[in-house]
Amino acid sequence: MNRQLFSPLFFGDGIVQILDQTQLPREETWLACDTVEKVALAIERLSVRGAPAIGVAAAWGLVVGLRSSEGTLDERFEAAFARLARTRPTAVNLLWALDRGRSVYESQRDAGEEAVLEALVQWAQALQDADVATNLELARHGATLFEPGDRVLTHCNTGALATAGHGTALGVITTAFDQQRIAQVWVDETRPLLQGARLTTWELERLAIPYQLIPDSSAGALMSQGRVDRVVVGADRIAANGDTANKIGTYTVAVLAHRHGIPFYIAAPCSTIDPQAATGAEIPIEERAAEEIRTVFGAEVAPEGAPALNLAFDVTPHELIAGIITERGVLRPPYTESIARALGSAQGVSS
Amino acid sequence: MNRQLFSPLFFGDGIVQILDQTQLPREETWLACDTVEKVALAIERLSVRGAPAIGVAAAWGLVVGLRSSEGTLDERFEAAFARLARTRPTAVNLLWALDRGRSVYESQRDAGEEAVLEALVQWAQALQDADVATNLELARHGATLFEPGDRVLTHCNTGALATAGHGTALGVITTAFDQQRIAQVWVDETRPLLQGARLTTWELERLAIPYQLIPDSSAGALMSQGRVDRVVVGADRIAANGDTANKIGTYTVAVLAHRHGIPFYIAAPCSTIDPQAATGAEIPIEERAAEEIRTVFGAEVAPEGAPALNLAFDVTPHELIAGIITERGVLRPPYTESIARALGSAQGVSS
Repeated sequence: MNRQLFSPLFFGDGIVQILDQTQLPREETWLACDTVEKVALAIERLSVRGAPAIGVAAAWGLVVGLRSSEGTLDERFEAAFARLARTRPTAVNLLWALDRGRSVYESQRDAGEEAVLEALVQWAQALQDADVATNLELARHGATLFEPGDRVLTHCNTGALATAGHGTALGVITTAFDQQRIAQVWVDETRPLLQGARLTTWELERLAIPYQLIPDSSAGALMSQGRVDRVVVGADRIAANGDTANKIGTYTVAVLAHRHGIPFYIAAPCSTIDPQAATGAEIPIEERAAEEIRTVFGAEVAPEGAPALNLAFDVTPHELIAGIITERGVLRPPYTESIARALGSAQGVSS
Repeated sequence: MNRQLFSPLFFGDGIVQILDQTQLPREETWLACDTVEKVALAIERLSVRGAPAIGVAAAWGLVVGLRSSEGTLDERFEAAFARLARTRPTAVNLLWALDRGRSVYESQRDAGEEAVLEALVQWAQALQDADVATNLELARHGATLFEPGDRVLTHCNTGALATAGHGTALGVITTAFDQQRIAQVWVDETRPLLQGARLTTWELERLAIPYQLIPDSSAGALMSQGRVDRVVVGADRIAANGDTANKIGTYTVAVLAHRHGIPFYIAAPCSTIDPQAATGAEIPIEERAAEEIRTVFGAEVAPEGAPALNLAFDVTPHELIAGIITERGVLRPPYTESIARALGSAQGVSS
């Protein structure tokens, strides 16, 4: 199958078009962002989410900031940079993209406004294209792990919506499905923010891949009934030994898969690996607002002010992971060695 | 601590008062049911839920049916019986209670209306009191398993709301807390119907027992952080070998507890044991409407018509269960023997 590539954001005629994910799955609304303020709000309000997608959105934000605002060239660039930098201060990809954008800007500013703008547009597009290329390559490697008839379970949303296109774990599933290796997908709804119920289902409908939505608590029952053949999920950060931080609930799925002898895979670009973290114990676990648990789409589902603990991530220890699918191939245990090799070859390429 | 016993239903002045659990935790509304139709609707609409509570509600329904309707004594009894019997046709406790009510009715009907009514009121009150007594006894046995400072995790709602009073697993927690054995309770929200978020939190607020609400997917992370000392849950049906069917998600909690060496207990009256089912494989797993997953309090959280699988229960194999807490003591492995002994002594008592 030759699919039309879907991206949750694109640039044209001086405007960044961003799919408003907060309205999914009920409405498919595109935000036409022709000022840096509109791009910044789209990032802040989670209309665009997922680390790679945020980085690309910020890159386009610099472009529209230069085009739409007033003042000298330097004033316009600095204003756009500052506004975008404070949208999601903890998103590493965002700051990384902005810093790259500054390098491009500084290398061309003496050539005049037109040259700077053209250079920034080319760079932002290259950033967007590179993310898609990485995901397609990652998916090509990952798809080989699946066998015809596989019923695969995934958690959270790791599709095109979270990236510049194709996605990570859901990209692997898409490619494997197109190779007739997957019969159906089990979609964890992924409480509390329901990214599986809201976003992964929406993507699978678009892709015409058969799926069934389940509460997170059903995965164990399905596995014990022999109805899950493989698990693939994304990652927020991977330690040097392979321990992986990902959306809350991932560890539980890994433990269940291990008990039932079901292969459990991580799919993520090498940029997700943090060689500074020796093990998962060094990855901080963010706690988010209790309100996200007490309310669902505005409806109160618990007593007002009920104490609630909202851990955003958990850490899956490396011994529960059958393989880490990256754009440089499927890394296998022992991960300390396979990860060092993968990063070493990367540094070789980029230096 | 000497607690006022709370019951979600009671009888007085010819009226059955039923707490409308569909409005919890937002509103505490009592339904004054002075006709059999009102009692039947309260059962059908899940205003009263939990097998023991439904049985008691049906018993009181026979009483108000005889008092409020028209026709001969026999006509009134049969009309009330038939209306109540079709409320929740699969609820075993309901039919069991109605059949007992018929025996009481038939033994007294020749003595006249007043004698019949008095006998039925006494019987219904005895049924309600017996359920409370069973739960208090069960809790007394179960509380001995806890140690001061314990942080205990529970799933779904098994409190006073699900019974005639005190509850099963939550009753054990209440008694153990009153003996200063419990520091705090982790409450699984229990998707899809959120009985933990809506009902267990409401009960723990009333009881002034410290708790924190968590998404079902957080239990694994908390256990891996060493923040859970014990797990206790209820049961819908227990097989002769100890395999236990309970609310979806229970199996997952048991697997996680096993991995972390955390004792996992079931709390249920002996009437929950089904000696006809040799193992859990013989317990049918009910599938409920997909709508319960796609919507939360009326809000759509998934694409319209998205395929969803809604397993109501799962089965926890006996080898993951550290003990089954009953009113006849804590049953220990091997369960085939301890369960047979418990049921044997029961038959000895009742015959």
